[in-house]
Amino acid sequence: MRITNSTPKADGYYMPAEYAEHRCTYLLWPERQDNWRGGAKPAQAVFQQVVETIAKYEPVILGVNKSQYAHVLELNMPNVQVVEISNDDSWIRDCGATFVVNGKGGMRAVDWKFNAWGGLVNGLYFPWDQDDFVAAKMAAIECVNRYRLSDFILEGGSIHSDGEGTILTTEECLLDEGRNSNLTKEQIEQTLKDYLGAEKVLWLPKGIYMDEDTNGHVDNICQWVGPAKVVLAWEDNPDDPQHERSQAAYDYLSKQTDAKGRKIEIVKIHVPNPITITKEESEGVDVVEGTFPRNEGDRLPASYVNYYNCNGAVILPVFNDEHDQAAIDTLQKLFPDKVIEPIYAREILLGGGNIHCITQQVPRP
Amino acid sequence: MRITNSTPKADGYYMPAEYAEHRCTYLLWPERQDNWRGGAKPAQAVFQQVVETIAKYEPVILGVNKSQYAHVLELNMPNVQVVEISNDDSWIRDCGATFVVNGKGGMRAVDWKFNAWGGLVNGLYFPWDQDDFVAAKMAAIECVNRYRLSDFILEGGSIHSDGEGTILTTEECLLDEGRNSNLTKEQIEQTLKDYLGAEKVLWLPKGIYMDEDTNGHVDNICQWVGPAKVVLAWEDNPDDPQHERSQAAYDYLSKQTDAKGRKIEIVKIHVPNPITITKEESEGVDVVEGTFPRNEGDRLPASYVNYYNCNGAVILPVFNDEHDQAAIDTLQKLFPDKVIEPIYAREILLGGGNIHCITQQVPRP
Repeated sequence: MRITNSTPKADGYYMPAEYAEHRCTYLLWPERQDNWRGGAKPAQAVFQQVVETIAKYEPVILGVNKSQYAHVLELNMPNVQVVEISNDDSWIRDCGATFVVNGKGGMRAVDWKFNAWGGLVNGLYFPWDQDDFVAAKMAAIECVNRYRLSDFILEGGSIHSDGEGTILTTEECLLDEGRNSNLTKEQIEQTLKDYLGAEKVLWLPKGIYMDEDTNGHVDNICQWVGPAKVVLAWEDNPDDPQHERSQAAYDYLSKQTDAKGRKIEIVKIHVPNPITITKEESEGVDVVEGTFPRNEGDRLPASYVNYYNCNGAVILPVFNDEHDQAAIDTLQKLFPDKVIEPIYAREILLGGGNIHCITQQVPRP
Repeated sequence: MRITNSTPKADGYYMPAEYAEHRCTYLLWPERQDNWRGGAKPAQAVFQQVVETIAKYEPVILGVNKSQYAHVLELNMPNVQVVEISNDDSWIRDCGATFVVNGKGGMRAVDWKFNAWGGLVNGLYFPWDQDDFVAAKMAAIECVNRYRLSDFILEGGSIHSDGEGTILTTEECLLDEGRNSNLTKEQIEQTLKDYLGAEKVLWLPKGIYMDEDTNGHVDNICQWVGPAKVVLAWEDNPDDPQHERSQAAYDYLSKQTDAKGRKIEIVKIHVPNPITITKEESEGVDVVEGTFPRNEGDRLPASYVNYYNCNGAVILPVFNDEHDQAAIDTLQKLFPDKVIEPIYAREILLGGGNIHCITQQVPRP
C-alpha cells in the first residue's frame, strides 16, 4: 500500500548498510537492443553468471519482461525465482525500490521517482514509464508498504547508506539539472535524510570519469565497507583525468566525520587501465534516435568499487586487467569472512554500469 | 525452481481444503473486451469489490497485465499487493497454481498445463500462452518450488480437495475431448491422486446446466464444507434441465464414501431462477472470431456454490434472486464462525464464471 503522508525517518525506518544481512537480491534481465549488443545475448550470459553466483549465497528474484519470460524460465536456475517485472532497461539499483527497516522486524520500501538519469534534459532513453513502476512491483512482491515520492528524482546508485546515519552521494549527480533542479542542495539533503532515515549527507564532488550515463553515481567511486570506513576508486597517474576526481574525493572525505562524529578511514582501490569500446562492440548495438549512443573509442567508466556485497560474498567486476588482483586482495582483506567472487564483466560495463548497478538488496528485517 | 522428476504425493505433499487457513488470496484483473462488456469496466468494479472484501480477512495479491498496472495501482486498495502477471483472462482458479503442503511447514506449487478450457478442440480463446505462465509466476512470488506437468491439462476449478485424501471432480469436464483425450479415466484419476496427494476421486457425472465454457467444472455445483460433507447446487423444478443434473450428483454422492470410508452428508443449496444475457449486455462485448460468443438470451450457469471460502468469511455471489437469502442462511449455518459476504456478481457471471473462479488460495503452510 502507498504511503504519502509520512516519511521513513518520521516512522522510525532507515536504510541499512549493504553489507548488513540480506533476505534476497533482485535483478532485472537485460534485453533492449539499443543498449546491449548482439540482441543482448552476450550481456544475458554475464547477467546469468551474476545471478547464479549470488544465488549460491542468498535467494534471487529475477524480474523479466514478458517477452523474455519463457526463455529465462527455461534456464531453471537454482535458488532463483523468475517473476514478471516489465522494465525499460535492467538497472534495478537505479529504478528499483530502496528498502528501509525499523530494527523491530518491520520493513518498507522507498519508491523514488525515476526519469532515466535525466529525463527530457539528459536522460538516456524515452519512455521510462515501466522502469518507474519497478519499485512498486518489488514492494508488492515483498508484501511491504511503500513510500512514494511524487516529485523527487533519485536513483539507488547515487546513494550509499552506512546504516548508522550517514549517506554518501555526489554533487555531480544529485545537483545535475536533469533531476531536481527546482530544489536547493539543502532541500535535496533534507529529502535524503527523511527518506533514508539519516542524520548526515557526505557530498563527494564527482563520480568516475566518463560516467556520463549516470552523471557520476557514487556507487562507481566510493562505498562503505564498515562503520566510518570506505573504499575509494583511485588512479595514481596524475595525467589521467580520473586522478583529479579521486584526489578531490579523497581530500573531501579526509576532512569529514560521519553522523556519529568519527573520522573516515579511506581504502584506495586502483581503477583498471582505460577501457574503450571496440568497433565490433559499437556496431552490435541498434542505433535509435533519443537513446544514448555507444560509440567506438569511447572510454568506459570501469571501477572495481561497483561490486555487490551480499551474504557471504563480494561479487566483484573484473576486467582481465593488471589491477584485478589488487582489487581482489584488498576486498578479501576488508571482508575476511566473505568469498570474493570475481566475474569478468566487460559486457555489463558496455551497457553503462556494472554489477552493483544491476543488483538491489532486500535487507533481512 | 521446477521439479519434473517427482510428484507431490511421492514427496509427502497434499492439497488442503479451501476452508483450511490461508496465507493469502490471488486474483487477476479483468480487461479483455471480447469477454467483458463495456471495456471490462463493470466487471472491474465488481472484481474490486471482491478484492476489497477478501482483503478485510486476508492479504490479497492482485495480478494485472502491464496495460492496466497504472490504473490498478492508483486504486491504492488496503491490504492488496498489485503485481504484474500477464494473463489472457482473469480466471486464476483455472490457470493459476494449485498449492500443496506437507504438514511440516513446507509448501510447493502444482503447475498444470492450461489450454483455455479445451485448446483447439473447444477452447474459449487463442492464444492462451500467458495464462499458462501464471502458475509459474505465482510460485515465484511465493518463493516455492513448482511441479510442472508437461502433458496433463487441468483447471483448478475442476477439482476440490477435502485435504483428507478425497477429490471431487466431474466426468463432464475431465473426460471432455478438449483436455486429456489421450488418457483413460484411470490414468487421469492416478494423476489427480499423484499431484493432489489424494487416495480417492469422486466423479460427479455433470456440472451446472449451460456451464459450456468450462465443460461442467465441479466448483459450480459441489464443494466441501467439512470432512465428509458437501454443499450441492440444487433445483427443485423437475422441468428445469438443472434438476436432472443435481439429482444425478445427489444419487451418486449418496452411494459414495470418502477416502476415510465415511458416508458423505449432502446439503442442498437451491440455484437462482434462470438468468439470461440481455441485448445490452451482449452488445457490450467485442465480437472476435475464435472467442466464445456472449449471445442475447443465452442462459448463464448461475450457482451459489461458486463462493470463495477465505479466513473468517465466505464471499458469496448473489443475484438479486428469491433464493439469495436461503443460500446465505445455509452457509451461515454451515460456517457459524465466518461472516457471509454476499456480493452482487452478475457481471462476473456474464464473463463465464463467478467468485470462486476468479480466486485462488495460498494455504498457510
